[in-house]
Amino acid sequence: MRTIAVYPGSFDPPTVGHLDIIDRSSRVYSRVIVAVARNIRKNVWFTPAERMAMLRKLTRTYTNVEIDSFRGLLVDYARDKGAHVVMRGLRAISDFEYEFQMAHMNKKLASEVDTVFMMTGERYSYISSNIVKEIASFGGKIDDLVPPLVKKEVLKKIEKRRKA
Amino acid sequence: MRTIAVYPGSFDPPTVGHLDIIDRSSRVYSRVIVAVARNIRKNVWFTPAERMAMLRKLTRTYTNVEIDSFRGLLVDYARDKGAHVVMRGLRAISDFEYEFQMAHMNKKLASEVDTVFMMTGERYSYISSNIVKEIASFGGKIDDLVPPLVKKEVLKKIEKRRKA
Amino acid sequence: MRTIAVYPGSFDPPTVGHLDIIDRSSRVYSRVIVAVARNIRKNVWFTPAERMAMLRKLTRTYTNVEIDSFRGLLVDYARDKGAHVVMRGLRAISDFEYEFQMAHMNKKLASEVDTVFMMTGERYSYISSNIVKEIASFGGKIDDLVPPLVKKEVLKKIEKRRKA
Amino acid sequence: MRTIAVYPGSFDPPTVGHLDIIDRSSRVYSRVIVAVARNIRKNVWFTPAERMAMLRKLTRTYTNVEIDSFRGLLVDYARDKGAHVVMRGLRAISDFEYEFQMAHMNKKLASEVDTVFMMTGERYSYISSNIVKEIASFGGKIDDLVPPLVKKEVLKKIEKRRKA
Amino acid sequence: MRTIAVYPGSFDPPTVGHLDIIDRSSRVYSRVIVAVARNIRKNVWFTPAERMAMLRKLTRTYTNVEIDSFRGLLVDYARDKGAHVVMRGLRAISDFEYEFQMAHMNKKLASEVDTVFMMTGERYSYISSNIVKEIASFGGKIDDLVPPLVKKEVLKKIEKRRKA
Amino acid sequence: MRTIAVYPGSFDPPTVGHLDIIDRSSRVYSRVIVAVARNIRKNVWFTPAERMAMLRKLTRTYTNVEIDSFRGLLVDYARDKGAHVVMRGLRAISDFEYEFQMAHMNKKLASEVDTVFMMTGERYSYISSNIVKEIASFGGKIDDLVPPLVKKEVLKKIEKRRKA
Repeated sequence: MRTIAVYPGSFDPPTVGHLDIIDRSSRVYSRVIVAVARNIRKNVWFTPAERMAMLRKLTRTYTNVEIDSFRGLLVDYARDKGAHVVMRGLRAISDFEYEFQMAHMNKKLASEVDTVFMMTGERYSYISSNIVKEIASFGGKIDDLVPPLVKKEVLKKIEKRRKA
Repeated sequence: MRTIAVYPGSFDPPTVGHLDIIDRSSRVYSRVIVAVARNIRKNVWFTPAERMAMLRKLTRTYTNVEIDSFRGLLVDYARDKGAHVVMRGLRAISDFEYEFQMAHMNKKLASEVDTVFMMTGERYSYISSNIVKEIASFGGKIDDLVPPLVKKEVLKKIEKRRKA
Repeated sequence: MRTIAVYPGSFDPPTVGHLDIIDRSSRVYSRVIVAVARNIRKNVWFTPAERMAMLRKLTRTYTNVEIDSFRGLLVDYARDKGAHVVMRGLRAISDFEYEFQMAHMNKKLASEVDTVFMMTGERYSYISSNIVKEIASFGGKIDDLVPPLVKKEVLKKIEKRRKA
Repeated sequence: MRTIAVYPGSFDPPTVGHLDIIDRSSRVYSRVIVAVARNIRKNVWFTPAERMAMLRKLTRTYTNVEIDSFRGLLVDYARDKGAHVVMRGLRAISDFEYEFQMAHMNKKLASEVDTVFMMTGERYSYISSNIVKEIASFGGKIDDLVPPLVKKEVLKKIEKRRKA
Repeated sequence: MRTIAVYPGSFDPPTVGHLDIIDRSSRVYSRVIVAVARNIRKNVWFTPAERMAMLRKLTRTYTNVEIDSFRGLLVDYARDKGAHVVMRGLRAISDFEYEFQMAHMNKKLASEVDTVFMMTGERYSYISSNIVKEIASFGGKIDDLVPPLVKKEVLKKIEKRRKA
Repeated sequence: MRTIAVYPGSFDPPTVGHLDIIDRSSRVYSRVIVAVARNIRKNVWFTPAERMAMLRKLTRTYTNVEIDSFRGLLVDYARDKGAHVVMRGLRAISDFEYEFQMAHMNKKLASEVDTVFMMTGERYSYISSNIVKEIASFGGKIDDLVPPLVKKEVLKKIEKRRKA
């Protein structure tokens, strides 16, 4: 069976938690499309192009992972791609509630696409893109939270913002 | 990619919610092994053989679904079967907490088997085997909760218990 | 509009939290039927008759509150009584999950009976019949948890159990 | 007993979930006042007048439902109206937490007004005004989420915004 | 053992709930540093200096409580102060989730500082600085939510805003 | 300030999660009394004496940790010991709810003893004594869940049970 999975997110920036989900998805689905959301609103540091570039470098060694972006309704995008599942990481209760609502709504809007969840690894359960940005902007260490290449981009961005 | 999924449970008896998860799993995994837990303890009405027989009849039309049973640690069973994922249905917060703990523990015990979750369909979110047994034993209607063949077996069991 | 409410529970024994819900229900519904569940299983200290006797004394001053008991499915009982709503107190998350499941199930079984909820008063949020029994059996003070008449019955019961 | 219930909300726009709660409230309370909150802040699409007009058309057939609006503290409004209960729909955990806090606070501010809750019907549990607006603005179908008349108003609003 | 505790927060304004935590912390730790966060963003009414002045007056009688402020990462501040624990109040599930994430992150960033939690007293469980501001701005009574001196400052602030 | 902490539990058997809390408590309180509950009921494998012996060996190197046991109400025990705080580990939502109820109840019964919480370390969040027993009885590996000395005792106990 050839199952296509879409893994959507803002990835602003990608964290080690995201990479864990990508790695695990790549082992159980034939094709994994990491889909950068273009229409997120607040507290965005990186352009969709920058986020896609980072993800491409980080997933270079996976032959069945590709990076893309989307605008509009996720289910429309997933259907266009012929995806069978939408992949989501679950961290905590508040995640759970929101994801539950979204999964039901997506099922309603496109019954042929199913949402499946993976629990975020315990080591990654407290990591989020927002926490990475918050810690980095106060000068804290983010070495355990993001891969080295993302760390470099985050620090560059902070440098630029300071000068601006 | 040939992904093998194990869907474990007590299925005492199987409900329409279980069948929903089996149906959806069968669409995204190459092979789905429904695994009846033999070592459950309390409030069991059906023998493992009876539960397996019901599941076999209910999944007869799926070419990639098979029915089996296991005793002992789920991860050992999953590893023996060469499974890549353990499939679980998520209904609510209390489910979530327990499943979260189990998923981490299973990952620890067998890192090559990953747990993935599907949200139970909204129509099935209040259904469980225990509720089926409770309602049926008070003479309530269970037509929307289990397939006709399971209903018949449940009523037979109640009849038998009454005579005993 | 004459709205009849059923307030079901085990009331083993009645606590100040139960009385708070009865008092508040009596102000918004024409008739409140406090319904003692006969078919509860574990850790029961008082017979249905004893629980009903305590509740009758405690609600003597309410002209629109009556005490009854039931066996079997709550919705069947509520329908028999011509009730429009089933009243439930909500204390915490775990309550919420269970009550949510029950409310949906009851709605399914008897669509003309609706479940409505009142939040337990903050002062009562940590009180339950089980905690009353646990504290009392270790010799702790339960004066703030139950009315004086219930306290007397609880202590009598402990005395009896000690002798047995 | 004549019980007056206030059902407050932003209703921006009204959904089938809101109408379910209005319908069920109208069966158990003598008079139901649907109260549009004027002082909501962010992401508002419809003026209070527009929201009230939609609600009036949608509840035309109920003889004991009326539409109003309020500014300021809900409990002050409820007290002014002589209301006995504030009616709220509960969907999920996050709702529960917030509503719990509000119910206690309202009780404190006006002890004669009690908050009662109804669980949102399972079919409506993933629907919210914000999700309606999000889906509609991406061109998704909202036919199952709002009544036809609301759908028309939402599409008109999107048309206008596009031109602006 | 001389244990130093940091109790961080925005205290905009301090509530009776905050004072309860300060009081209880002062009984179990040798030194309690109440640390006003300078870098909070939205809906701030009081300057850090104003918040510190209120806290100083309110804790005047405690010999082991001092008032300070910080900017940047909490763990860096706690480490600078030689603190052994960060003290947090827990009110509800949503608090819990956020605090859980923060506690793990702080532990990671500074393993020598541990986060400990006290449950907010039941009487204070619905109180927050934001609710105080919301109620006050609608003309509601806040006498039970904040000490008299804070009430005065809140009303002054509202007066000023009205004129502005 | 000399703060005495009681850390109660069943410790049947002690896990690496328990030892983490003991270690962290010993750093912030002058004296830590690990108190084995004698009155637990179901699924107990070890006698109080056996549990205390294991804990004594495991905490031998801590000069301010002592092992004791109690029967009856925890608050009575804590008061007898002159304790200022009861220490609890928090793992997850369901823990949270139960602990919340207990903390309020204990505060009510003995206002001079306060309950404080530490989040279980992320590595330990899925570990409990019951899970250790369940995995071990199915022949699974428990090396990461308990110290070597506890592992030996658990395996001995299983051997004995098999023969019985």
